[in-house]
Amino acid sequence: MIRVACRQLAPRLGDLAANRELTASAIGAAAAGGADVVVLPELATSGYVFASPEEAAAVAVTPAHPLFGEWASAAGRAVVVGGFCERGDDGRLYNSAAVVDRGGVRAVYRKTHLWDREKLVFTPGDRPPPVVATAAGPVGVLICYDLEFPEMTRTLALAGARLVAAPVNWPLVDRPDGERPPEVVIAMAAARVNRMAIACCDRSGTERGQEWTAGTAIVGADGWVLAEGPDAAADIDPERAASKAVSPRNDLFGDRRPSLYTL
Amino acid sequence: MIRVACRQLAPRLGDLAANRELTASAIGAAAAGGADVVVLPELATSGYVFASPEEAAAVAVTPAHPLFGEWASAAGRAVVVGGFCERGDDGRLYNSAAVVDRGGVRAVYRKTHLWDREKLVFTPGDRPPPVVATAAGPVGVLICYDLEFPEMTRTLALAGARLVAAPVNWPLVDRPDGERPPEVVIAMAAARVNRMAIACCDRSGTERGQEWTAGTAIVGADGWVLAEGPDAAADIDPERAASKAVSPRNDLFGDRRPSLYTL
Repeated sequence: MIRVACRQLAPRLGDLAANRELTASAIGAAAAGGADVVVLPELATSGYVFASPEEAAAVAVTPAHPLFGEWASAAGRAVVVGGFCERGDDGRLYNSAAVVDRGGVRAVYRKTHLWDREKLVFTPGDRPPPVVATAAGPVGVLICYDLEFPEMTRTLALAGARLVAAPVNWPLVDRPDGERPPEVVIAMAAARVNRMAIACCDRSGTERGQEWTAGTAIVGADGWVLAEGPDAAADIDPERAASKAVSPRNDLFGDRRPSLYTL
Repeated sequence: MIRVACRQLAPRLGDLAANRELTASAIGAAAAGGADVVVLPELATSGYVFASPEEAAAVAVTPAHPLFGEWASAAGRAVVVGGFCERGDDGRLYNSAAVVDRGGVRAVYRKTHLWDREKLVFTPGDRPPPVVATAAGPVGVLICYDLEFPEMTRTLALAGARLVAAPVNWPLVDRPDGERPPEVVIAMAAARVNRMAIACCDRSGTERGQEWTAGTAIVGADGWVLAEGPDAAADIDPERAASKAVSPRNDLFGDRRPSLYTL
């Protein structure tokens, strides 16, 4: 069993120093609680509602920035997946997530499906989402709106992810009384059809009038929500995702008919 | 707006005559209630829990069978999508669904993802699911376990389906208290990520000890359940599925990145 913990922070827009402290502190608290995997929100180092690319550029960092060393130190033996505003070697800005452990920055994923005004600030990534071999098993990464493309979760599952860590910033949208956020319903379905856990770490607070769903949820490989809320934590068994057998004669992967599907 | 109605019947195993009457009567009642589209369960003409291929063969019919004329007569101006046990020209058995309207049998879809012991009885279909131009707009068809492959709902959406009619027989499985059947969660997600309505018509009763979920649900294009239960009916706007725009800068189809996806 591994313990997955999400920390639903409210980053301070444009204040890298404050967010370094906030994120490292959150990682330390989660690790102290026994977490093997700590998931932070999208753009946790920068905030989200940039008025201009210049504003984002002012807090953009490369994966060589010392803040990731701070994350690793705070994490101890845990693995961290958190969102940050990345300045690429090409000078462009990316909405990225880093996978960090005691070995340093293990992978950086650049969000490939940008939401709304993100398109005015960020360049979309041009590589598939990674699956990183960690001490907690193979961890896949995606960011927020990526999750709404079932092809993305399927791609991670086929690549061997047993857990998907998803930093998100879910803008609050209408939903019927008593319903979960639609993004959580989508994560539940993706987890079940791929038999793979999915941990979505949302953010809290408001930023320039934008309200967030604060819908953090950890979904198990059978598609049920195991934990919700600002400090959601759940024990999951990565082995549950190892087999895709769902009946004596059915396998979620083996039963696929790719020749019949439109890509 | 169009009215979609599901009729959650309990077919009598192996009794074609009884099921002809049952299905035609149900279609007539739904049509009298104003339905534009009537969805019946999977294998509505035959029942499900066959002990042998021979047992299924005894109630298998071709699309030329007069029962489909009875469906059309009962439907009046409505479109019917219902499951039946098909005997193919090749002599094989298929778990199929027919789309029937006053023009006759408009399409037959053979289930492509067979569940468990169905594999001992039926041959899987080798063609993608159809989208049929009907008086109620473009209707896509899939059957039960097909729905658990997000590639299938995506394929129908990309082919222009605004409503998917899904005859199902959902074997009852465990779920946490207060949760919907997992298949409904999957339908909700598929509806929302494709902005397309999905009507799942389950069956009731038990058959040779097999319990069914009786989880009939009509899900709107925004992913919320509009109606549930044995005679579920809901008014849906097919135009809601015409545009995939979800923000000023986002389109659920236009934002796809197929080159990054593993098929």
